Amino acid sequence: MYRSHNNGALRLEHVGQEIQLSGWVQKVRDKGFMVWVDLRDRYGITQLIFDGERTDVNLVESARSLGREFVIQITGKVIEREAKNNQMATGDIEILVSDLIILNKSKTPPFTIEDETDGGDELRMKYRYLDIRRNPVRENLIFRSKVTMEVRNYLAMEGFIDVETPYLIKSTPEGARDFVVPSRMNQGQFYALPQSPQTFKQLLMVGGLDKYFQIVKCFRDEDLRADRQPEFTQIDCEMAFVEQEDILNTFEGLVRHLLKEVKGVDINEFPRMTYKEALKTYGNDKPDIRFGMKFGELDDLAKGKGFGVFDAQELVVGIAVPGCSEYSRKQLDKLVDFVKKPQIGANGLIWVKYNEDGSFKSSVDKFFNQDQLKGWADRLNAEKGDLLLVMAGAEHKTRTQLSALRMEMAEVLGLRKPDEFAPLWVVDFPLLEWDEETQRYHAMHHPFTSPKPEDMNLLESEPGRVRANAYDMVLNGNEIGGGSIRIFDKETQSRMFDLLGFSKEQAKDQFGFLMNAFEYGAPPHGGLAFGLDRLVAIMGGQETIRDFIAFPKNNSGRDVMIDAPSRIDEAQLKELHLITDV
Amino acid sequence: MYRSHNNGALRLEHVGQEIQLSGWVQKVRDKGFMVWVDLRDRYGITQLIFDGERTDVNLVESARSLGREFVIQITGKVIEREAKNNQMATGDIEILVSDLIILNKSKTPPFTIEDETDGGDELRMKYRYLDIRRNPVRENLIFRSKVTMEVRNYLAMEGFIDVETPYLIKSTPEGARDFVVPSRMNQGQFYALPQSPQTFKQLLMVGGLDKYFQIVKCFRDEDLRADRQPEFTQIDCEMAFVEQEDILNTFEGLVRHLLKEVKGVDINEFPRMTYKEALKTYGNDKPDIRFGMKFGELDDLAKGKGFGVFDAQELVVGIAVPGCSEYSRKQLDKLVDFVKKPQIGANGLIWVKYNEDGSFKSSVDKFFNQDQLKGWADRLNAEKGDLLLVMAGAEHKTRTQLSALRMEMAEVLGLRKPDEFAPLWVVDFPLLEWDEETQRYHAMHHPFTSPKPEDMNLLESEPGRVRANAYDMVLNGNEIGGGSIRIFDKETQSRMFDLLGFSKEQAKDQFGFLMNAFEYGAPPHGGLAFGLDRLVAIMGGQETIRDFIAFPKNNSGRDVMIDAPSRIDEAQLKELHLITDV
Repeated sequence: MYRSHNNGALRLEHVGQEIQLSGWVQKVRDKGFMVWVDLRDRYGITQLIFDGERTDVNLVESARSLGREFVIQITGKVIEREAKNNQMATGDIEILVSDLIILNKSKTPPFTIEDETDGGDELRMKYRYLDIRRNPVRENLIFRSKVTMEVRNYLAMEGFIDVETPYLIKSTPEGARDFVVPSRMNQGQFYALPQSPQTFKQLLMVGGLDKYFQIVKCFRDEDLRADRQPEFTQIDCEMAFVEQEDILNTFEGLVRHLLKEVKGVDINEFPRMTYKEALKTYGNDKPDIRFGMKFGELDDLAKGKGFGVFDAQELVVGIAVPGCSEYSRKQLDKLVDFVKKPQIGANGLIWVKYNEDGSFKSSVDKFFNQDQLKGWADRLNAEKGDLLLVMAGAEHKTRTQLSALRMEMAEVLGLRKPDEFAPLWVVDFPLLEWDEETQRYHAMHHPFTSPKPEDMNLLESEPGRVRANAYDMVLNGNEIGGGSIRIFDKETQSRMFDLLGFSKEQAKDQFGFLMNAFEYGAPPHGGLAFGLDRLVAIMGGQETIRDFIAFPKNNSGRDVMIDAPSRIDEAQLKELHLITDV
Repeated sequence: MYRSHNNGALRLEHVGQEIQLSGWVQKVRDKGFMVWVDLRDRYGITQLIFDGERTDVNLVESARSLGREFVIQITGKVIEREAKNNQMATGDIEILVSDLIILNKSKTPPFTIEDETDGGDELRMKYRYLDIRRNPVRENLIFRSKVTMEVRNYLAMEGFIDVETPYLIKSTPEGARDFVVPSRMNQGQFYALPQSPQTFKQLLMVGGLDKYFQIVKCFRDEDLRADRQPEFTQIDCEMAFVEQEDILNTFEGLVRHLLKEVKGVDINEFPRMTYKEALKTYGNDKPDIRFGMKFGELDDLAKGKGFGVFDAQELVVGIAVPGCSEYSRKQLDKLVDFVKKPQIGANGLIWVKYNEDGSFKSSVDKFFNQDQLKGWADRLNAEKGDLLLVMAGAEHKTRTQLSALRMEMAEVLGLRKPDEFAPLWVVDFPLLEWDEETQRYHAMHHPFTSPKPEDMNLLESEPGRVRANAYDMVLNGNEIGGGSIRIFDKETQSRMFDLLGFSKEQAKDQFGFLMNAFEYGAPPHGGLAFGLDRLVAIMGGQETIRDFIAFPKNNSGRDVMIDAPSRIDEAQLKELHLITDV
């Protein structure tokens, strides 16, 4: 037995007991006549004491020889500390050590194992096993485990069945790029790793399982943007005999349960917003509604007043930033620079200070009088002391730009509070979106999403106006989940594939099994999937997913710790009947 | 809303209520003046009634038109049945239907959706979504979900953290064959799919996570024997600061918990048996101990008595089969044929009937007298009425053959009761096994398994005699889990790689990251993995795993439902810089 207790367990009530502990040496403090060692494990830190009077002299020497991250096992007696430390759970006691075994030595770690480490990203990833010893990373992993457990508890309670779907499936060129897996037993053929278990979960509904869930790895071979991983985890769910309303209620319940159980936060009903409304009010289909600064459209107030910059534009739109009327010239210039950044791409920005005395000062004072600016302020629900920021241009682009500015201002003003949670549903997404590059419609969600019955008549005439029974769950400005009611009859599915430019042969080749299944009594069904990595990160009050993944890959898709991917043996290639041309 | 209740929910107490149900048409019985429809979903069957007197005539006509597996939604009133059916949970009531909507039609299914179906294996797999509608398959999947939930409950309670390890890792030629995944972003390089998360879970221990688990897919590109799948699921666990005893206790606790919660079976302490003892007593390192027929060695009693067949052999060994002394000549011949089958490969079999009157009749009466045969019977703990079966030959081979015969006899006698559970631990496995083909030692478990400290001195002189801190959990004659205490220092690990024939370069190239990690304070650790598919099948009282997997592959590694693997686009190959030579 290596330990009788862990390093977070001992309290005053244990004083006098003989115990064993094991763990890592966090710190050695040598005061000459006394040596203290902080012993660490997953559960906490316990202070060990070796002193000249009460401890064997050789033992004191051994203690002195310990280096950072040595792994040791000790026997000792729990004693009350003279100087208690109420910052530590075990701060009332220390261990007078009577025996010490060094289980393993450690070279000096390449970075400090402290909450604030001196290790850079690349180094931390290469030695991820050391990085995980740091409290913040370990706590994130434990947090993730807790979240998934609560997800399972809730879904099991609601009658969902956890079903594993296969990882070696079939490649379908539609959607993102597949990772493929050459088959040795079926020469020249390949499996694909799933981008999601979409078709399998639908088949489980055809199979009568009624309520399915799975926490499952998915794979996309995409060029990695920041904070994307080639393998990522979904909470994947599907239900039969449901309408959109049933699904919204069930999964609103899930997120409410998680916030309650894991964060202790109570949330009532989630607001719902149409896609159109979200774009109009926040310039964004995943609005952060923890704070205001809603969009106000100023076309009628701002156009045709002699300010040429506005007159020719499709849209003039603004927000009122609370309490920033005293921004300096420098601060305002910074905002202008922000919107002019290539990622944002605006030409400029109009500002209006709504001073505390009720007067206005703006960058367009030449063109608009105080009354007119008061009109703007009213439209934007501004109060004295606010700063109005106004942009103009093509409708969609301008909204997107103003949305970016709104988020930036929220960041600057500290309105994106990590411990505040504001979920909402965005509904009524368009079924299709036009792709300029390929000059055809793409499925906004995926090809299995059902059109709203009342819009079916527009499918041929105005496909772009057809709304889908699709919905996203948004939390703090991030899409954390999305789904739809599915098509469940062969005819509609086949019409959909036509619309998306599949030939009959392609549709049959890739999704024939699904369309066949629809001919044998497919029930109405729908579902959704949450992105677990992001959900956990946001619930954990952070926005980067990487520190919630035990062994993440870098932006080139490499695991720098194990050094993968790598070349493989010629023999392996030969067995697979493959030749690489690089 | 498609339903107010499911089809397993309604009872007498609901009589008089207006309800909605949805589901599949299991059966239509048309008695002319009345039509009954059995409506099915995951939860049960409810009987619908349409009759000439109380139901609108068009509705009765609609009901008549329903085909098997049509998906319908009905509104109706719960009424008490005149002829109750106590075989069904809903057998006290039926629904007088007032409205019927056909949600989806169904072609006639290619096999019957009944407990005993007329569909062959291949057909059932092609239409797996229909097969899953059958009670036995659905119940198996629900059972699996229940087992995994209980696994998680127990491990979470014990402080284990669920950590996801990566699927895109590095290929290591040691062990079974890897499935590989070409990397597009790192041209000419490949990921491998994990055969198990072995090294990652060890790194999590180095990282201080203390207790890890994961229910995880693993992959092996092997030629498929019956009842093997290229992708399979493990319950993967690891603990730090533990000795073998800690692990045995923890996971014995897990299986005890599962048997209790899922099967209602109480099991006390699991027996433990050394590998040597298991081979000696059962001829097998995964003995089925639900029944006796333990091996008895007869060398001293049977050799040198003038029966040449025995004299030259390494081992004479037998079992006593209970109550089979009256076997006919034909039955005995069948046993002889059994052991002579090529899979068993024995030359023959000696039988001795221990008659009810205390006399003996045997196939070797010419060579052994009654007293001598009584000696055999005593050695085998036989009782009157038993049949002694004796085999002779090379030690290991003969034990294996007799073991097969023992299992066959248990099968014949109905001793392998699916609702009886007899788990045990087999411990003290050899560290290495000699491979004749490659003329070198292989790791019996894997290269990370630690030798028993007391056997370390044999590592160079007699490697074959070194025992490992390795253990298997056996349930009803199947290995359901196995693991070991790991090596946790670089020196021993490197010595191990030497022994296994790795060059320094190979060891560094493939496992350098692990050996590096061991230099930064690796704690003692160990763990095990259960094969979930088999565990669930055995707990479910079956021995084939395929019906506990939602979408299994066939023996050629194909998914016949989706028709994978398949050819992929030239464009995809080109992006991966790959050429296939078939």
